[in-house]
Amino acid sequence: APAFDPTEHSHRRRNPLTGQWVLVSPQRSKRPWQGRQEDAADETLPSHDPGCYLCAGNTRVSGDVNPAYTGTFVFTNDHAALMPDVPQMQATPASPDPLFTVASARGTSRVICFSPDHARTLPELSLAAIGGVIDTWCEQSVELGRNHPWVQVFENKGSIMGCSQPHPHGQIWATGHLPNEAAAEHREQRLYLARQGRPMLLDYAEREAALGERTVVQTAHWLAVVPYWATWPFETLLLPRFAVQRLPQLDPAQRADLAVALKALTSRYDNLFRCSFPYSMGWHGAPFDAVGDDARAWQLHAHFYPPLLRSATVRKFMVGFEMLAEAQRDLTPEQAAEKLRAVSDVHYKASDV
Amino acid sequence: APAFDPTEHSHRRRNPLTGQWVLVSPQRSKRPWQGRQEDAADETLPSHDPGCYLCAGNTRVSGDVNPAYTGTFVFTNDHAALMPDVPQMQATPASPDPLFTVASARGTSRVICFSPDHARTLPELSLAAIGGVIDTWCEQSVELGRNHPWVQVFENKGSIMGCSQPHPHGQIWATGHLPNEAAAEHREQRLYLARQGRPMLLDYAEREAALGERTVVQTAHWLAVVPYWATWPFETLLLPRFAVQRLPQLDPAQRADLAVALKALTSRYDNLFRCSFPYSMGWHGAPFDAVGDDARAWQLHAHFYPPLLRSATVRKFMVGFEMLAEAQRDLTPEQAAEKLRAVSDVHYKASDV
Ligand SMILES: O=P(O)(O)O[C@H]1O[C@H](CO)[C@@H](O)[C@H](O)[C@H]1O
Ligand SMILES: O=P(O)(O)O[C@H]1O[C@H](CO)[C@@H](O)[C@H](O)[C@H]1O
Repeated sequence: APAFDPTEHSHRRRNPLTGQWVLVSPQRSKRPWQGRQEDAADETLPSHDPGCYLCAGNTRVSGDVNPAYTGTFVFTNDHAALMPDVPQMQATPASPDPLFTVASARGTSRVICFSPDHARTLPELSLAAIGGVIDTWCEQSVELGRNHPWVQVFENKGSIMGCSQPHPHGQIWATGHLPNEAAAEHREQRLYLARQGRPMLLDYAEREAALGERTVVQTAHWLAVVPYWATWPFETLLLPRFAVQRLPQLDPAQRADLAVALKALTSRYDNLFRCSFPYSMGWHGAPFDAVGDDARAWQLHAHFYPPLLRSATVRKFMVGFEMLAEAQRDLTPEQAAEKLRAVSDVHYKASDV
Repeated sequence: APAFDPTEHSHRRRNPLTGQWVLVSPQRSKRPWQGRQEDAADETLPSHDPGCYLCAGNTRVSGDVNPAYTGTFVFTNDHAALMPDVPQMQATPASPDPLFTVASARGTSRVICFSPDHARTLPELSLAAIGGVIDTWCEQSVELGRNHPWVQVFENKGSIMGCSQPHPHGQIWATGHLPNEAAAEHREQRLYLARQGRPMLLDYAEREAALGERTVVQTAHWLAVVPYWATWPFETLLLPRFAVQRLPQLDPAQRADLAVALKALTSRYDNLFRCSFPYSMGWHGAPFDAVGDDARAWQLHAHFYPPLLRSATVRKFMVGFEMLAEAQRDLTPEQAAEKLRAVSDVHYKASDV
């Protein structure tokens, strides 16, 4: 009888951050794809677009005029999903109805333009400009963390990821509650600390740096891996190699090195299929109201969830079985990491090579 | 100060089947959409396509020839994500590594062609033909349930849902383990039975039938509602109005009435935006190895997860905040139900009206 081979045979892996499993079916990589093809995102954009709501000096849909900004620019979303001033709900009954459970949701939604340049995505910015984005993430987290336990910094990149504005930008949604994913990671990391005596992701970064087979980018202070439990084909987890709970705690050297890691990771992504690689990415850190072991259990980290599977035009669909049962992936995380290591960390459009 | 109004103000609702929350932001319905537009799926297809792998009498990619079938036709997926004969893994260590946890995955993946007609989707089939699909779902569940605790019957409809074959078909993936979603529903339904003494979804169907505001289709034995906790804009939950744990237990009258409910629900979907309405749908029932209260806690039900939001060409993107924090919806479930009730339950293409 043949031996079990994880590059040939279906198996499941457990995500220790959420407690969820993923079905890995490497034999599925061989199936021919006859389904939908995406448009490749390869249009050339101008540095300034007079019709863009996000470019410097332009008027937004709200009527507000953007300043002549030169670095990052942050404003409150004109169509925010979260608002600070939602009226109080009627007093909740003593025992809430288990079938119709409702809770209030207060918060704020902001937009961060990464730079005035309409055409330059994160990997195409200078290290100094990426450093400016990192500083803005940190400042926003300090400010919003004062009265929100959760501050979700994220970027939807590419129209395939629901991004409705080509001007490179991210978002920050701050909430008065811990959202589902945050609550799951909070639970699992506290359990791990209680059992193992160390923060989960500090242990994990050390183990991955030693193993190397899932490593995509490694710098002095940072490590990007395709995690052992990745669900998206080229998902990565960006981890600090030192103990840190939240974005604002990063010191100047750690921030400068993070710019290097982000530029290398996103350049490898773009180089993989020679396109502007779409993804949703975002930062997770200790809730701003967590103290003691509840905070110490956490390690700051960023998730990158890119949808592409085989090429610039063939994506992974998380549908059917995935929505109703559990996530399924076609190539192994080790195979994905190998492909990302095989391309350059210098962007294919970079003129300075 | 204005009073809290769920049609105007952000709030969260809890899904009692999974324990997950959804952020409802009805004010977001007003935002203009400048992002991606999907292709409307309105091509006219022939009843038989000589190039289709699923049509009767044609040769598949595997070289197998489809029989000249007249009702449904089931075969094992030529590129299955789950296989019965995966080799044994090495013996698991006494205490598994919490960061690198792996488990075996055995099972099978089958395809069900709904009818020989290449051009007729579920709502366009006769009640008798839909009854044939239901009988096949039940027979397959009996057969695969003998040696699989979980039998996931589902359909991905439309290329936007990763469906790579226009010929109307569904799938069945049977697994030797309880997948994530099944495990969550198992946990929450058992908790509810233990606390309330009745199956959760039997209580829920009664309450919704009495309230009516989220009802989309109601027949003698079945109820389709936009659940109070729906995440997708026009998500529905199809519920029996009688106690039943698994598909094969349905008697002939309940099956015939289910065909009526399915035809009405999917016709309303197509009529909403006058297009072949894409979705992933599937059935959940008690695990086949559950006995006693573990089975009695369950009610059979089907979930429909459609991606469209505003029109045949504008979808909801579950990205960014949704992937990193929690699902967010723009219109309330009650508003969605009202829109689905406002259209006819007779399909817009039906010639026999
Ligand atoms: O039907 P196919 O081509 O096997 O595959 C489709 O459904 C599967 C199950 O939901 C998904 O895993 C795939 O991503 C999707 O493309
Ligand atoms: O950036 P927008 O246009 O506000 O919206 C985009 O990101 C949001 C947060 O991830 C999602 O809820 C929307 O579905 C998506 O289209």
